[in-house]
Amino acid sequence: MPVLDDALARIDANLDDALKRLFGLIEIPSVSTDPAHKDDCARAAAWLVDELKSVGFEASTRETAGHPMVVGHAKSSRRDAPHVLFYGHYDVQPADPLELWETEPFAPRMADAPTGKRIVARGAADDKGQLMTFVEACRGFMQAGGLPCHVTLLFEGEEETGSPSLPAFLAANKDELRADLMLVCDTNMWDRDTPMITAMLRGLALEEVTIRAAARDLHSGLFGGAAVNPIHVLSRVIADLHDDQGRVTLPGFYDGVAELPEDVAEQWRQIPFKGSDFLGAVGLSTPAGEAGRSVLEMIWSRPTCDVNGVTGGYQGAGSKTVLPAQASAKVSFRLVGRQDAEKVLDAFRDFVRARLPADCRAEFQRQGASPALQLPFSSEMLSRARRALAQEWGKEPVVGGSGGSIPIVGEFKRGLGMDSLMIGFGLDDDRIHSPNEKYELSSFHKGARSWARVLDALAK
Amino acid sequence: MPVLDDALARIDANLDDALKRLFGLIEIPSVSTDPAHKDDCARAAAWLVDELKSVGFEASTRETAGHPMVVGHAKSSRRDAPHVLFYGHYDVQPADPLELWETEPFAPRMADAPTGKRIVARGAADDKGQLMTFVEACRGFMQAGGLPCHVTLLFEGEEETGSPSLPAFLAANKDELRADLMLVCDTNMWDRDTPMITAMLRGLALEEVTIRAAARDLHSGLFGGAAVNPIHVLSRVIADLHDDQGRVTLPGFYDGVAELPEDVAEQWRQIPFKGSDFLGAVGLSTPAGEAGRSVLEMIWSRPTCDVNGVTGGYQGAGSKTVLPAQASAKVSFRLVGRQDAEKVLDAFRDFVRARLPADCRAEFQRQGASPALQLPFSSEMLSRARRALAQEWGKEPVVGGSGGSIPIVGEFKRGLGMDSLMIGFGLDDDRIHSPNEKYELSSFHKGARSWARVLDALAK
Repeated sequence: MPVLDDALARIDANLDDALKRLFGLIEIPSVSTDPAHKDDCARAAAWLVDELKSVGFEASTRETAGHPMVVGHAKSSRRDAPHVLFYGHYDVQPADPLELWETEPFAPRMADAPTGKRIVARGAADDKGQLMTFVEACRGFMQAGGLPCHVTLLFEGEEETGSPSLPAFLAANKDELRADLMLVCDTNMWDRDTPMITAMLRGLALEEVTIRAAARDLHSGLFGGAAVNPIHVLSRVIADLHDDQGRVTLPGFYDGVAELPEDVAEQWRQIPFKGSDFLGAVGLSTPAGEAGRSVLEMIWSRPTCDVNGVTGGYQGAGSKTVLPAQASAKVSFRLVGRQDAEKVLDAFRDFVRARLPADCRAEFQRQGASPALQLPFSSEMLSRARRALAQEWGKEPVVGGSGGSIPIVGEFKRGLGMDSLMIGFGLDDDRIHSPNEKYELSSFHKGARSWARVLDALAK
Repeated sequence: MPVLDDALARIDANLDDALKRLFGLIEIPSVSTDPAHKDDCARAAAWLVDELKSVGFEASTRETAGHPMVVGHAKSSRRDAPHVLFYGHYDVQPADPLELWETEPFAPRMADAPTGKRIVARGAADDKGQLMTFVEACRGFMQAGGLPCHVTLLFEGEEETGSPSLPAFLAANKDELRADLMLVCDTNMWDRDTPMITAMLRGLALEEVTIRAAARDLHSGLFGGAAVNPIHVLSRVIADLHDDQGRVTLPGFYDGVAELPEDVAEQWRQIPFKGSDFLGAVGLSTPAGEAGRSVLEMIWSRPTCDVNGVTGGYQGAGSKTVLPAQASAKVSFRLVGRQDAEKVLDAFRDFVRARLPADCRAEFQRQGASPALQLPFSSEMLSRARRALAQEWGKEPVVGGSGGSIPIVGEFKRGLGMDSLMIGFGLDDDRIHSPNEKYELSSFHKGARSWARVLDALAK
C-alpha cells in the first residue's frame, strides 16, 4: 500500500482517539487577552508539547515576554524532501457574553446537526480544531512509516491579541524556523463541500483611544450644559471616520490599496456567491460598506475601519445622571495591499487630536499592527495543493481572499521571505469569536486527510 | 427664652448625637437604581420611620410599585399655624467606580479639611445629610416645647431614578399631603458662606436607546466592511444631537424655552460668579455649551442633552475583533421653562429612527420624565425665608436657579398647585454622584439651625 493510503487509513482509524485529544486541548481556557488566564495559556502550550512528543516530534515550549511558543521538529527519511513550517495558535477569544452559550464554552461536546456531527466549544474551530488536523495528519504518516516532508511546527499563544511577541521570537530563531514553505490552518472552506485556498489576507491594526476631560465624573444637572462630555467628543470622532459612501475618511488611508487585476476580478464574479445569503445568515440583508463594491470585495480585498468596543459613563441598570470624566473606544483597521499599518494608526491619532475641543485630551494604546498579505495567484506549490484538495473533496478548491488577519503570515513574509499556503476547514457559520462556536466533525476528519494529501503532493 | 432660641440651643447641644443618627442612615446602601439593593431601600425607609417617631412624629412607610415612601405628621400647638410639607429622598446614587473611593462609600467618616470637618460617604450630602437637617430642626423645636408650624414629611426612595412611583402616590394621597407650602432640602449654597434659595429647577427626561443589527456578534475580519456596525450608527446619532454652536438639534427642542426677564438677567450678571473658577474646580477651563451664553445660564436656565453612558461591543482588557450585535446609550435631557418632556423624548425617538440604516432597529426604554419648575421671584414666603437665612449666616441669600432636577417639586406644582421653597446646604465641591462624596459639618449643623429659623419665620 502506498504510504499516503496507509496514512489516510490510519487517520480514519484514529478518529475517536483524535477527538478525545482535541477535547483535552479545548478544555484548557487559554484566553490570551485576559491576564487571569495566563496560567491556562502556559498549560495549553505544555499540553501541545506532550502531544507532539507522542506523535514523534522533538518539541518544547519557548518563553516569550507574553505567552509561550511551542516549537516541534520531525524529519522525513528522504533527506532531499521539502521542509515545511506549519503554523497554528492555541490561544482563543474570550467566551463572553457567557449567558448566550447553550453549554459551558470550555466543556466541548459533540452535537448532532442536520448536516452531521459537530464539536461545540470556544476554540473548537479557531484554532484548536484546525491546528489538530495537521497534527493528526502527521500522526497518520508517522504510524505509516514516516513523514513525506521535513516538518517544523510553530504554535503561538497570542494570535488573538495581535501576536506582540512574534516578531522578536522570529528574529531570534530565524535559522531554526526557516523552511521552504509555510502552511497555515486558520481559514475557512468556501462552503461545506468546497475546499478553499486563501491567497489574500487582510492585515490588522488595533488602537484603543481614551478621551479624558474633567478631573472626575460630574453631576449632569449641576454641570450639564457647561462641561464638555467626552462621550459626545468620542461619538463625533467615530461618526467622522466614514463618509456617506462608506469610505474611511482618514487622510492617506487608501494609499497602497490597488484594484484587483481584471482576471482575478472576473474569477470572483464567477464564484457562486450571494452577498444576500452571506449576510442573511446573520440576520442582515444589505451590504453596509463602500458604495459600488461587491460583498466579496468588501470582505476580501477592501480595507475597513470598525469600532469593536465603546465604553463611557454609567454602565449599570437604570439611569445615572453623570457626565463622565472619560470615554474610550477600541478601534480596528483591516488592511489590504500595501497599506502601512503604522501610518494608518498615526493618521488615526492625528484625526482624533484634530477633533479634540478645549479641555479634552486623548490617550492611545496600540494593541497590535500587521500588514496585509497577498500571495502570487499562481505557483507550483499552489497547483500541487489544489490538486491534493480536489482529490480529497472531489471538487476544485476556490482560490480567494480572507477578511481576517493571520499576523504570522505577514511576519514570515517580511522576516524570512517565506510564502504561505493557507488552507483551512472552518465554515462561515462556525461562530468563531461568538457564543456557541463549533467545528464540523467532517472539517476535523477530512481536514486531517487533506493535510496528508497536501504533504504527500508537496513531496512529489 | 423665646422658643426659637431654645430650639437653636437644643440643636447645638444635640450635634454629636445627630451625627451618630445620620451615620446610621448613611450606612444603609439604599441605591435605588440597582435591584440588588431593594431590601436596603426598605431598610432605610424603616429606619426613618423609627427616627421620626423618636422625634415625636406619627410616621409610617407606604408601599409603592417601587421603593416605599415614608410619611410623617406632627402638629403645632397653634391651630392656625401654617402647614408645611417637607420633602427629601433617602435613596442614593450607585457608588461606582468603587476603586476611586478613598474609603468604603457606605462607611461614613469624619474627615478634617482645612475648611473644617466634613462627613465623607455616598449620600452624606445627597440627600441623607440634607434631609436630616430638617429632622434635627424639628427635634430641637419638639424638645423646646413644640413646632411653630404643622409639619408633614415625605421621604421617597426613587429620586435618583426619576421618581417613577411618585405621581400615582401623590394622586392617591392628595388630601394627606396637601399643605400651604412645600420645603425641599436637596440644593446647594451659593458658596461656603452664602446661603441660597433656588427658584428655578431644570426638569429631566431620560431615555435609553439600544440599536440592534446582526443576530449575533460577528468576527470583524470575516464580516467587517460588509456588515453594519451598531456602534457607528449610534455614534452618528450622538454626534448629530448637537450643532457646532452647541445647540441641540432635535426638531422643536427649544419650544417653551424663554429668555430670562431683564431684571433677573441683570441680577445674575451682578452675582460674583466666575465660570472659569466653577469649571476650574473640576479640571476644566472652557464652557462647552451654547455659544454666546454665560455659564450661569448654561447650568441654570438653558436646556441640555447629554449622554450619561454608552456601551457596545467588547468591554474587557485588550482587544477583541468583534462587530457587536448592538450598542446602547443612556441619554438625558435637562429641561427648562415650559418644555414638554414627553414631546422631547418623542422627538428623540423620531430623530434616532430617521438615522437608522438598513438592517438596524432601535429599542427605547423611557427612564423618567419631569418638567422644569420656575417659582415666582417675589413672594411673602420667599421674603421671610430670605430674612431667616440672612440671620443665621450673616449674609443675604442668593436667589437663583439649579441645573439639577427635583422631580417632586414639579409633580407637586402640577398635582396639588403647591409652591416650593428650595433651600439646601450642599456645596459645589460635595462630589455628589461621584466618588468621595462629602457634606460639610457646618452644612449639617447650620443647616439644621437654618431650618429652625425658617420654620419660625414662616409661622410669624
